[in-house]
Amino acid sequence: MATATVVKGLEGVVAANSGICWIDGYAGVLAYRGIDIHELAEQSTFEETTYLLWHGRLPSRSQLVEFTGKLTEARRLPSEIYDLFRRFPKTATPMEALRTAVSALSFYDPAESAVDHDSNVRKAFALTAQIPMLVAAFDRIRKGKDVVEPDRSLTHAGNFLWMLHGKKPIPAATRTFDIALILHADHELNASTFAARVIAGTMADMHSAITGAIGALKGPLHGGANEAVMKMLFKIAHEGGDPVEYVRSLFAQKKKVFGFGHRVYRTEDPRATHLRKMSEQLSRDSGNTKWYEMSRRIEDFVKNEKKLNANVDFYSASTYTTLGIDLDLFTPIFAISRMAGWAAHVIEQLDDNRLIRPRAEYTGPEYPVKYVPVEQR
Amino acid sequence: MATATVVKGLEGVVAANSGICWIDGYAGVLAYRGIDIHELAEQSTFEETTYLLWHGRLPSRSQLVEFTGKLTEARRLPSEIYDLFRRFPKTATPMEALRTAVSALSFYDPAESAVDHDSNVRKAFALTAQIPMLVAAFDRIRKGKDVVEPDRSLTHAGNFLWMLHGKKPIPAATRTFDIALILHADHELNASTFAARVIAGTMADMHSAITGAIGALKGPLHGGANEAVMKMLFKIAHEGGDPVEYVRSLFAQKKKVFGFGHRVYRTEDPRATHLRKMSEQLSRDSGNTKWYEMSRRIEDFVKNEKKLNANVDFYSASTYTTLGIDLDLFTPIFAISRMAGWAAHVIEQLDDNRLIRPRAEYTGPEYPVKYVPVEQR
Repeated sequence: MATATVVKGLEGVVAANSGICWIDGYAGVLAYRGIDIHELAEQSTFEETTYLLWHGRLPSRSQLVEFTGKLTEARRLPSEIYDLFRRFPKTATPMEALRTAVSALSFYDPAESAVDHDSNVRKAFALTAQIPMLVAAFDRIRKGKDVVEPDRSLTHAGNFLWMLHGKKPIPAATRTFDIALILHADHELNASTFAARVIAGTMADMHSAITGAIGALKGPLHGGANEAVMKMLFKIAHEGGDPVEYVRSLFAQKKKVFGFGHRVYRTEDPRATHLRKMSEQLSRDSGNTKWYEMSRRIEDFVKNEKKLNANVDFYSASTYTTLGIDLDLFTPIFAISRMAGWAAHVIEQLDDNRLIRPRAEYTGPEYPVKYVPVEQR
Repeated sequence: MATATVVKGLEGVVAANSGICWIDGYAGVLAYRGIDIHELAEQSTFEETTYLLWHGRLPSRSQLVEFTGKLTEARRLPSEIYDLFRRFPKTATPMEALRTAVSALSFYDPAESAVDHDSNVRKAFALTAQIPMLVAAFDRIRKGKDVVEPDRSLTHAGNFLWMLHGKKPIPAATRTFDIALILHADHELNASTFAARVIAGTMADMHSAITGAIGALKGPLHGGANEAVMKMLFKIAHEGGDPVEYVRSLFAQKKKVFGFGHRVYRTEDPRATHLRKMSEQLSRDSGNTKWYEMSRRIEDFVKNEKKLNANVDFYSASTYTTLGIDLDLFTPIFAISRMAGWAAHVIEQLDDNRLIRPRAEYTGPEYPVKYVPVEQR
């Protein structure tokens, strides 16, 4: 029997048991498999963090070597995917292209409908390796450039920057991007991960679940937020006005200011701490402190005025821009990272599956409404 | 704060207010906008039912004419989609092709990221009209046949059979298929519809939501069930054994028998009543009563032995087979119908949106687990 109360957006409702991610929104704690995100951001790598998310513990050195080797081997795309990209219309956006390509990749999977544990892990390797390749290849193809093949000597983070820009990234850029990937890798039952679990819960395959997750991430209330932040910064710079006055007028018009507040955190988003630091460091290294300083002034104002904290999206905007990444690749980059978490959740869901099928509280015309033939209406 | 209890699969948990679909699982009632499914199946059409789902009431005659006209106008596909289908590998399944093509269709939408009410309704017309075209075109292309263009004089149901088979369907076939479309058009927060709402809740676009829903429908626990039923019937026929003995041995091996029981209904699924009748009628008309009779014997046995009722999937299997529809098109056909409900739910979600973001009950290693550098592990 359905419960009587509706919690809109399932806020605070527990939808699953999960051993992957611990969030204490009041204390501002985020931990993967019990390990604090601050320790991972400072000491781990995306590869090691992905192992942790999938296997529940940190790898030994030999396990890490094996894992990284598998990821390197999986960095391959069927040539048909590049052909597909070349046929997409010029107006196709990177998120549409990514969603479509991930869906199409199931064609080339040797067991696309298999949902056993080993098949899921194999597909997790494949898609984790392929998503950065898709993002980089689509961007180069739409710009009329040649696709850059992955380099076996580079890390996951370094490879993406290499495949995107076609030149070897400096170590500081690789490390910054690696930390950004660690910070975004999982966040419990966020909307895209929850969508992936709902899809996988029907025993649909990994490609279906990840395709759906990419669709959810595409929404401005989810992955689109840092893009919206950067658009605001560009607009302020273009108009030449004062950042604080600009945001004040947004509030006066009751418009949303992206990059602040969070459904779960009641204190600072622990990921924001690192992205602020990285944004500052990168801006000093590159000699262009404009975006960082503008962000800092807006943050202070919003915090004082509205008691809202910057979230993960606020400083990733200036960080990615300083790394030379286009605005419309911010959400695809989020997908590159979150793929690790999506896979962990799909694997967990299917290891002990139960169809996710809630009920609705009916608010429509009271049953029974009589069917009246059209000639009598 | 998260609630303490986890209801696995959100069974019985209310996840949204909705005025679209009323289900009383104890009384075996299904109603769209308050109108009993039995009255709709007997007297309505898919077009009129879709109007009802989207607008909340039955149309006047002129509203129905306008609605049907819009659907007829929307029966168009960009030629690029056929090119795409021709490039898919021979092993591509219809559900993979449909998921990928719906994702690719957003490229050709004049306002793909728009999520206002009018844009959503416009996209709902487009995708409702296009999905049957995609299913039929892909099937013909994979069989090396020419694509059949829609016929403006035919209904939605008639057009699909025409585009699929390339010959005008007899009225009885069209009416049977029309009723099947009505019966499957909506079912409250089933997994694919819920996936669509979770995706739309991020303010992602209609194409993202429907792509995700198709992925969820692809799972054997959801849309795949009638295909599994028919595979069982084919297997029994091929092996020449007794249907009842076959099912008895499945139970003895603790294997799932598809087509029985339902998360929501505790009595007969009201849709099963019509599909049983249609299966019987069609089998008599066609002179091939084998699948119907086999189904009937299995139903009686399972009902007596396990107190499980046949659900919507059990008799749709023999119905579709008798209509000359291939096994792997059963789930795509489900999508043709459920598109009406998916659209109604996405429109409703975005008319009064709230991000759907539940919490998980954490079951992993207790925080904080210390990060140990790899050389000390």
